[in-house]
Amino acid sequence: MQNPIRVTVWNEYRHELVNPKVAAIYPAGIHAPIAAHLQAQGMVVRTATLDEPEHGLSAEVLEQTDVLTWWGHRAHKEVRDEVVDRIQQRVLQGMGLIVLHSGHFSKIFKRLMGTSCDLKWRENNERERIWVIEPGHPIAAGLNEHFEIPQAETYGEPFDIPAPDTLVFVSWFQGGEVFRSGCCYHRGKGKIFYFRPGHETLPIYYQAEVLQVITNSVRWATPVDGPKIHFGNLKPPLEQVLREG
Amino acid sequence: MQNPIRVTVWNEYRHELVNPKVAAIYPAGIHAPIAAHLQAQGMVVRTATLDEPEHGLSAEVLEQTDVLTWWGHRAHKEVRDEVVDRIQQRVLQGMGLIVLHSGHFSKIFKRLMGTSCDLKWRENNERERIWVIEPGHPIAAGLNEHFEIPQAETYGEPFDIPAPDTLVFVSWFQGGEVFRSGCCYHRGKGKIFYFRPGHETLPIYYQAEVLQVITNSVRWATPVDGPKIHFGNLKPPLEQVLREG
Amino acid sequence: MQNPIRVTVWNEYRHELVNPKVAAIYPAGIHAPIAAHLQAQGMVVRTATLDEPEHGLSAEVLEQTDVLTWWGHRAHKEVRDEVVDRIQQRVLQGMGLIVLHSGHFSKIFKRLMGTSCDLKWRENNERERIWVIEPGHPIAAGLNEHFEIPQAETYGEPFDIPAPDTLVFVSWFQGGEVFRSGCCYHRGKGKIFYFRPGHETLPIYYQAEVLQVITNSVRWATPVDGPKIHFGNLKPPLEQVLREG
Amino acid sequence: MQNPIRVTVWNEYRHELVNPKVAAIYPAGIHAPIAAHLQAQGMVVRTATLDEPEHGLSAEVLEQTDVLTWWGHRAHKEVRDEVVDRIQQRVLQGMGLIVLHSGHFSKIFKRLMGTSCDLKWRENNERERIWVIEPGHPIAAGLNEHFEIPQAETYGEPFDIPAPDTLVFVSWFQGGEVFRSGCCYHRGKGKIFYFRPGHETLPIYYQAEVLQVITNSVRWATPVDGPKIHFGNLKPPLEQVLREG
Repeated sequence: MQNPIRVTVWNEYRHELVNPKVAAIYPAGIHAPIAAHLQAQGMVVRTATLDEPEHGLSAEVLEQTDVLTWWGHRAHKEVRDEVVDRIQQRVLQGMGLIVLHSGHFSKIFKRLMGTSCDLKWRENNERERIWVIEPGHPIAAGLNEHFEIPQAETYGEPFDIPAPDTLVFVSWFQGGEVFRSGCCYHRGKGKIFYFRPGHETLPIYYQAEVLQVITNSVRWATPVDGPKIHFGNLKPPLEQVLREG
Repeated sequence: MQNPIRVTVWNEYRHELVNPKVAAIYPAGIHAPIAAHLQAQGMVVRTATLDEPEHGLSAEVLEQTDVLTWWGHRAHKEVRDEVVDRIQQRVLQGMGLIVLHSGHFSKIFKRLMGTSCDLKWRENNERERIWVIEPGHPIAAGLNEHFEIPQAETYGEPFDIPAPDTLVFVSWFQGGEVFRSGCCYHRGKGKIFYFRPGHETLPIYYQAEVLQVITNSVRWATPVDGPKIHFGNLKPPLEQVLREG
Repeated sequence: MQNPIRVTVWNEYRHELVNPKVAAIYPAGIHAPIAAHLQAQGMVVRTATLDEPEHGLSAEVLEQTDVLTWWGHRAHKEVRDEVVDRIQQRVLQGMGLIVLHSGHFSKIFKRLMGTSCDLKWRENNERERIWVIEPGHPIAAGLNEHFEIPQAETYGEPFDIPAPDTLVFVSWFQGGEVFRSGCCYHRGKGKIFYFRPGHETLPIYYQAEVLQVITNSVRWATPVDGPKIHFGNLKPPLEQVLREG
Repeated sequence: MQNPIRVTVWNEYRHELVNPKVAAIYPAGIHAPIAAHLQAQGMVVRTATLDEPEHGLSAEVLEQTDVLTWWGHRAHKEVRDEVVDRIQQRVLQGMGLIVLHSGHFSKIFKRLMGTSCDLKWRENNERERIWVIEPGHPIAAGLNEHFEIPQAETYGEPFDIPAPDTLVFVSWFQGGEVFRSGCCYHRGKGKIFYFRPGHETLPIYYQAEVLQVITNSVRWATPVDGPKIHFGNLKPPLEQVLREG
């Protein structure tokens, strides 16, 4: 039997404390329904937030995390660079990272993408229809060929990201935009998935399809027992090993 | 000075002869405005159609063709397999291929893609908005970040193609669909571009942006003077060459 | 608990019957050690060979197959086109396909790739060293960063295939060649993996790393419960469904 | 007639000043033969080095640069972060970037890749054979299907980079390593090419094939006149423009 996947659900957790509208939707924080759902799938889940020491992401926590999910919006700049460094290292070593919605502008996503990660946006609660582009991908399991978010914040292309290794979803928006909504990346030994839906003023993280995708992506991003990598100058002993097999 | 690009604009050329509505829009055939435009860009253009001997695509014609553009719709099955074989060979040897609109279901495109190339469609003259996804790609030169086809046939995902090497455009449709509208592929030494717009009952091949994209894609798909490839059993002489450099 | 993966191990099974050298290595056929190993991993395995009726690949067998592995070499042309059609359809519907070694020239692989799948080759039992390029990919699980085949048939680039969606392995050969040895593709709802090692005159399919990779790739290629796809003209009822979600 | 391409050839220019062996090979600096060759192809070339004010890369210089080539090795850390920021911005706006050899560890390459860009290396002047993997790519123009560097520093996989958008070359090394030697990326509106050959103690930048590849890559990376991108909140006026087309 496989060990359960260990997930850390990270949330900035600021909107919920100052904006009653957000608090009404997510009284225990945006992380709460995500964490509850993943736990219900048999995963071992902890949560972490910006205002905890080290943002709740000590070296020890990260070491014990198979997959980290990330939601942030208004306080990206407050995330300390040494924590960003630490997360990046862990991703390159194999930890999965699921970046949600406005997390596109987080330091860690921009760091790992190398681009501005900028996009168009508009808050007018228009309809979003998310189409599956790669129907054989495990992140599309259990879905129909499209699903809808009845009211969403609009995002629009161009989305300044590297072309994803695999593009799983493309969104259609009522107002005339399209958006690459589900983007898979390998970086180092880690796997990254960007998933667009989710806005603090809308109950999107209670929607079944959205939770299904997050679950699928966590499973997909779980580290595999891949090779130990040797970098640097091949000194004779290793060289010998490499040459003699 | 570079030699001018030699383009063969292929058209099924059947709708125009039997459907007065199509004939009214394309009196000299769908190929006519495309050929005229490419010629005006300084290219050496010939046209070829289904009912010519060998569909106008003799070995000699293909040998003298740098880039072949393809429009077909109702008579895909009438294209003879030996001509399809010949085109495939030429693409693998370096000839560019631009597949337009309903050409997604042509024998040659299905042959080169290896998939069904199936999709959703609806004829109701809805609006299409084409977004540039890869703004640094030469096929996006001279465009704005989106352009519109005021009335179009709708195509919808999933589009059963291999994920493109580069995805340049994604379409938004008024009725709720999205579509990968500009798809680049390397196959052998050849380059292939699928471009969605164009329907026989609409004057789409007179639209400036559409003609700009076709021009850009022909330039992009023009063969480069790449290496001569050796396949098969490396016999000693060649082996010697390879070993001694 | 998940159902066990149902694998069909296909082998041309001709060399073994006419070449004593091959029979000495694979007395029960090349398929035997592969099938035995996958079975030992808990999979439900059947085998099928060229000279069985319908090559052992009736519609019913394929319907009950999650992943098909393919080894062929000298009799590619004897595989009947209607069986190739059937396999292609099943892959597009989700069945995994693992193509081994000289299977690069099989009808089904060429059909799905759309290219010649040609390459360089040389039989001189040189050393092959297979390097992991994408260390976080599930097909690399359980490996070191490289492994060796002490004696192998050499294959060399250019390998006339579409650039893989994910390149997992690159081989180094003693004689001076490199080769993309582990190539992942999505085609339709199916996943395809090409894996280079294996030659009928060498005991490669008894080597632990090779069997590990085949096992990993079968797991990776197992169908997921993805969306049911609707192609074609969106008639009002479906349109209604799609529009109303 | 097209305007000539404006290239800035950047070199750390330290080894040449302190190491007589390097100075003997590159008396005017590693940048000199590269710049001379590109100039001979009709490009407008300037050079810039680490110890110039702003490393020779003022905003004005970058503004007038279509493509920047980068060679650095021992002083990556001395490149100031604000200059790295500036280069990254220019790449995202369209400037091409050609990263050479040990430039894999430059701040700008690591910034744009988002990974460690680490690798294996060994200095023992072994033979490198560079194979063309994508023979229809413009960067392969004018080459044979492989070429050799008689004596090279060895680099080995895994190379911790994002999978390239297009993989043009793979190197074989005498000692048993392989390496992705020619890697194309789109980032923002800019194009990036990593090219492996070149070591300060070897006369590699005088070799015809190496100079051919650098020339090809500069041409490929030259900015195209792509769309002006709008990011951010779509305020009504722009929204109007976007909606009305």
